[in-house]
Amino acid sequence: MLSVNIKETATLLRNNDDFVVLCHKSPDGDTLGSAFALCLALENMGKKVKLAPLSSVPSKLEQLVYTSKNENFDESFVISVDVADICMLDKDCDKYKGNVFLCIDHHISNSSYAQNLLLDENASATCEIMFDLLQELDVKINLQMANALYTGMCTDTGCFKYSNVTPKTFRTAAKLIEFGAEHAKINRIMFDTKSYARLKLESAVVSNMQSFFEDKCKLTYINLDTISSANAQEDDIDGLSSIPRQVEGTLVGVFLREKEDIYKVSVRTSGEVDASEICKRLSGGGHICAAGCELPKDFNKAKNMILDAVKEELKNGKSI
Amino acid sequence: MLSVNIKETATLLRNNDDFVVLCHKSPDGDTLGSAFALCLALENMGKKVKLAPLSSVPSKLEQLVYTSKNENFDESFVISVDVADICMLDKDCDKYKGNVFLCIDHHISNSSYAQNLLLDENASATCEIMFDLLQELDVKINLQMANALYTGMCTDTGCFKYSNVTPKTFRTAAKLIEFGAEHAKINRIMFDTKSYARLKLESAVVSNMQSFFEDKCKLTYINLDTISSANAQEDDIDGLSSIPRQVEGTLVGVFLREKEDIYKVSVRTSGEVDASEICKRLSGGGHICAAGCELPKDFNKAKNMILDAVKEELKNGKSI
Repeated sequence: MLSVNIKETATLLRNNDDFVVLCHKSPDGDTLGSAFALCLALENMGKKVKLAPLSSVPSKLEQLVYTSKNENFDESFVISVDVADICMLDKDCDKYKGNVFLCIDHHISNSSYAQNLLLDENASATCEIMFDLLQELDVKINLQMANALYTGMCTDTGCFKYSNVTPKTFRTAAKLIEFGAEHAKINRIMFDTKSYARLKLESAVVSNMQSFFEDKCKLTYINLDTISSANAQEDDIDGLSSIPRQVEGTLVGVFLREKEDIYKVSVRTSGEVDASEICKRLSGGGHICAAGCELPKDFNKAKNMILDAVKEELKNGKSI
Repeated sequence: MLSVNIKETATLLRNNDDFVVLCHKSPDGDTLGSAFALCLALENMGKKVKLAPLSSVPSKLEQLVYTSKNENFDESFVISVDVADICMLDKDCDKYKGNVFLCIDHHISNSSYAQNLLLDENASATCEIMFDLLQELDVKINLQMANALYTGMCTDTGCFKYSNVTPKTFRTAAKLIEFGAEHAKINRIMFDTKSYARLKLESAVVSNMQSFFEDKCKLTYINLDTISSANAQEDDIDGLSSIPRQVEGTLVGVFLREKEDIYKVSVRTSGEVDASEICKRLSGGGHICAAGCELPKDFNKAKNMILDAVKEELKNGKSI
């Protein structure tokens, strides 16, 4: 693996042709946005390029799926974008494994599987790196590219809310607006639109919420019945685990999701209490603010087990 | 009224002393943040400055209430920040009416009540203007000032989500991070923390939701009983009206709030249907995306009246 910078990456792209671009599975705004902008840029440079197949794309992001103008060519150079590890490839992309020519990524955990790696772990999103690359390539950034890059940046930063935002993130976003990015419209679609199923699940999560240890801990759950009667997809369930912690004054938020044979438990804290220590007591793990474990499929048993672990950590940890 | 620019405003501040700074009533992050940064700046310039009394401040923003180092002086110069009209002053600030020396604001609706007006209606927040003013004054922006200015900018833009964000907004936010603004921490407090009462109301709004006209319209309501049993404050109710419109595929969202003697109706659209035309049919009014009216306190009657108006507009308007 060779680590390359923006200039070297631009040279690699200029000197080659017949590209195929890979996104990660369960594609998000960043992998699709960077792939879309890169494909358009290579097309504008007179190169042949196509997007590798994706088995499912969220409906909000469908307009970021690049359609090649020129499908009839042999794929000589494989480029992956925002793909931290080869196991993150879509199941239809097995044939590209071991053959990735260039990877462009911002994940510090990147497993260096590509022949050439352009990695900037300080970038908020791969789209932030892609913007610099397109500038280096002297590609004129049009409305479609600006929208794609903006989409990746706003989705990977929670609309500029998370700690991965840097001054450079903001300055790149400023330039994207100057290149025409329809930021307010994109934000409305990405952040102010929810499926009815999602709203129903959120409502259930709040109805099921209980308070423990002088309101320091909020616990809630979601059952298979609720999920199926709301007609919810996996997308609708993502992020529900953060709701209990969001309640004012809560140090530890616990979310139990019923699965076929277990309860999947997510613990979220705002940093005063160590979520990973709580979950380690139950053979799980994670980070200070977000951790998880699996518990037996008996609600009262599972609830008592996780509450005992929370209680211990509240007692032993620095918050008490 | 004299319209002044940043340079002229800086000169006014340099040449005078003994200031009192006014915020608008029901203070938000922008009025408090700009006042706080301005007070600290004037203090650092060796001026005497105090903040006018505020009858209530949201708990999340309490740290932005400036405490004067020097309360014992006659207030010679009154400065209002983010106050569009004199009627927006707190009830305890009546004595300052008609005597405002300088107003710094970004509301296009500013009623020019001050002797000197620094107005930039293209600024996302008054804090965006205040940053330029502090730079012009050569004030060293410290952590506290950066946090205050960032708070005003992120709260007035919905964390950089709304259409009032410009390239300059993003560039100012970039500089504030460089001056130390703890952006991720502030965002977590402002956007990822909700009262339990708020969550309960959101849950009720979703439980009460009904769908009409092939899912083009979602209608919901909140009763006085629900509000009182959730122990909710006015703050907790703000913005609930936007929930029905957020459901994917919804063109018109209707929210009925029970009041003592009427139903207060809020209509929200994503622009394809004219909310103000719907409300005009019932003696209300507003804008294309957000309008309102008042209806009799008989739920079924009120519901049928507003649904008839929605139906008419869906039939006559451009969306059908």
